[in-house]
Amino acid sequence: MMTLELVSKNKASDGWQKQYTHTSATLGGCNMRFAIYLPPQAISGTAVPVLYWLSGLTCTDENFMQKAAAFKTAAELGIAIVAPDTSPRGEGVPDDENGSYDFGLGAGFYLNATQAPWSTHYHMYDYVVDELPKLIEANFPVTNQRAIAGHSMGGHGALTIALKNTDRYSSVSAFSPICHPVDCPWGVKAFSHYLGDDRKTWEEYDASLLLAQAKQAIPMRVDQGEADQFLAEQLKPEALEAAAKKAGHDLILNRHEGYDHSYYFISSFIDEHLRFHAQFLKG
Amino acid sequence: MMTLELVSKNKASDGWQKQYTHTSATLGGCNMRFAIYLPPQAISGTAVPVLYWLSGLTCTDENFMQKAAAFKTAAELGIAIVAPDTSPRGEGVPDDENGSYDFGLGAGFYLNATQAPWSTHYHMYDYVVDELPKLIEANFPVTNQRAIAGHSMGGHGALTIALKNTDRYSSVSAFSPICHPVDCPWGVKAFSHYLGDDRKTWEEYDASLLLAQAKQAIPMRVDQGEADQFLAEQLKPEALEAAAKKAGHDLILNRHEGYDHSYYFISSFIDEHLRFHAQFLKG
Repeated sequence: MMTLELVSKNKASDGWQKQYTHTSATLGGCNMRFAIYLPPQAISGTAVPVLYWLSGLTCTDENFMQKAAAFKTAAELGIAIVAPDTSPRGEGVPDDENGSYDFGLGAGFYLNATQAPWSTHYHMYDYVVDELPKLIEANFPVTNQRAIAGHSMGGHGALTIALKNTDRYSSVSAFSPICHPVDCPWGVKAFSHYLGDDRKTWEEYDASLLLAQAKQAIPMRVDQGEADQFLAEQLKPEALEAAAKKAGHDLILNRHEGYDHSYYFISSFIDEHLRFHAQFLKG
Repeated sequence: MMTLELVSKNKASDGWQKQYTHTSATLGGCNMRFAIYLPPQAISGTAVPVLYWLSGLTCTDENFMQKAAAFKTAAELGIAIVAPDTSPRGEGVPDDENGSYDFGLGAGFYLNATQAPWSTHYHMYDYVVDELPKLIEANFPVTNQRAIAGHSMGGHGALTIALKNTDRYSSVSAFSPICHPVDCPWGVKAFSHYLGDDRKTWEEYDASLLLAQAKQAIPMRVDQGEADQFLAEQLKPEALEAAAKKAGHDLILNRHEGYDHSYYFISSFIDEHLRFHAQFLKG
């Protein structure tokens, strides 16, 4: 049941980047792929903490590993990185009937769907919070020290998951996150399909609404490019900023002139994110 | 005639990665795309030296820019990076009739073809040595200080171009280069089509044969993964090593346990290559 199948492996920065598949009970029995970067410390037998990386719309487990330029600093700091896919996958998994990029396959939004036909497989929230860490911690030389980060839809995932599980993660960071999905086109489209028309149920998956009422703080860093084409309509970091202020919690929010929504932005600042998380991850 | 059209731009590590297209006289008038990374020094008006990067089979101008993790160190050192495509492109450009990956489109081998139908467009040697640097030096804030590097087929290109033009480049480096193409399947297939049956003409494009007879040395570094699937049959660094010994020229050849032929290998050591070139590039 917890069997992992190795799909590929590549040595990188003295560690190893590997892809595995496994059958996911949480996601209705579909076959899921994830990628893991094991730094050299783990290879030589020292258990290391884990950063979970959640990718954005249309991505898979591969985008971050190929494009983020994170390995050198992860190797230096001794942090493993785990990148799950962005939705359930496989022949039996329903997709948007119009094949749009922002809903269905590749767009799981890191929530537990309650509406048919999505509710059988689309439980990415439980997968990321419970099943995947259990699998990682049972099969790799890692500790149970966890941080979480992500980009765009994955930034939304990282922030909401961290805010709802401050006991399970020591810190959270995001690039260009969807900060207030109940009030943007991507969020409204996804939530209305996955969660139905009762907007009250959407609030559980909105980082700004969760942060505004958060009793427990968690170290939180967000970086946002000012030339990001999705900034005003979809991302709304100002909502997260207002929520932090309302709740009296610290939020590091950096705005960067000229940077866009791409991995060129992520690769420019991923080292700083890794060093941010390293402050809070114990060995 | 020398008009450049901007296709895309992304800010990265305080500089800019941009793609341009232009009409190439050298390549029979086809429309070529290249990518350039301009470090922050160039953006603020200081002319910087240029590293030309030649990619491998099936690649375009994009692979290196997206996957090599080179920008942070290029920005630190103040080096621009130019990545051309790997062959002429466009509707009028002939391709291998069997559509194989190792000949025709995406596989120009950085030579000047002499045989029909290839000889109209396949002049990647002249494009890389003459037309592209002229274009770059006329349109961007760069000096005429040049280094050259590449991967696999592009490593072959970098080594042969540098050995034949020691006055134009200050140093050369390669990852997993095809070191002795007259004696490996990729080389024999490409050279027999592009250059014809007279094997004497092939010698002009074989790094090991050129190095064995080189009068003028050039600083040269090669990195090779020992888990590279193409090592024994296609790459043959031992031929390059023997040639350097025969000619009495220095060659830095590093073999790395566990590393394969992928960009995960390149991203692990690209910083060292940039620092190697920086020693020889004057501002």
